[in-house]
Amino acid sequence: MYDILHRVGVETSDPEPVYQALTTLEGLGGWWTEDVAGDPQVGGVVEFRFPPGGFDMEVVDHTAPAHVAWKVVGGPDEWIGTTVDWQLRQDGDYTVILFKHQGWKEPVEFMHHCSTKWATYLMSLKALVETGSGAPAPNDVHVAHPD
Amino acid sequence: MYDILHRVGVETSDPEPVYQALTTLEGLGGWWTEDVAGDPQVGGVVEFRFPPGGFDMEVVDHTAPAHVAWKVVGGPDEWIGTTVDWQLRQDGDYTVILFKHQGWKEPVEFMHHCSTKWATYLMSLKALVETGSGAPAPNDVHVAHPD
Repeated sequence: MYDILHRVGVETSDPEPVYQALTTLEGLGGWWTEDVAGDPQVGGVVEFRFPPGGFDMEVVDHTAPAHVAWKVVGGPDEWIGTTVDWQLRQDGDYTVILFKHQGWKEPVEFMHHCSTKWATYLMSLKALVETGSGAPAPNDVHVAHPD
Repeated sequence: MYDILHRVGVETSDPEPVYQALTTLEGLGGWWTEDVAGDPQVGGVVEFRFPPGGFDMEVVDHTAPAHVAWKVVGGPDEWIGTTVDWQLRQDGDYTVILFKHQGWKEPVEFMHHCSTKWATYLMSLKALVETGSGAPAPNDVHVAHPD
């Protein structure tokens, strides 16, 4: 199995706005994609849509404000069954996010692409909390073509 | 072993400027760090320096304009012996870069950090070729603290 790993530090004295950005439709829509719907509670499924397609995430864990976990139940074949794990910890004036998109079967080119895209979306999440404005799809940072 | 993977597409009809950005001191200084010195030929060692430290890369392969490979021979313990592999291919108006930083012994928190930083440096490389201006250290994008 192969994993995508990232870390960002979000400048905030309180992890709560980061946790809200990962656990509410309004928060998720502020950094990942504006086209988000579904049930963001544990056991629910959140539907994230992008111009080329989308992902359905089953919410596996919410432990405020330290941990969020999702399981991919719909989307591209390479994503089905993978998991997305968010660990948050407060370190002084920053909330440190440890991100893992785990369980890829093969390190395919699409995984390379998703790794870079996740980095830009994490920077979008950081910007959302720090400045009030992220860059969710369809206004996301383009890293390649098609994107 | 654990690998950092990324992909970006650089809008250019010719892969040569991307290849130059990976194989010359001037190019490397335009997107990764301004503080770069050494011998960028195959068999040489290039010294990349940043405010918190740096990396020494032995140049293992230059196959114009399709492949560049480095081996880390100096730097943080976690980096020593890892390899950095760049595959370039032309796809219409884009040079697609497949990037691999391979051979991490453990998926430590520092690896998460380096994965996100590599993404921002690849976006810097993309900007350098597309616009003439990248964001090399010490003017790099900050993803965390310390950075």
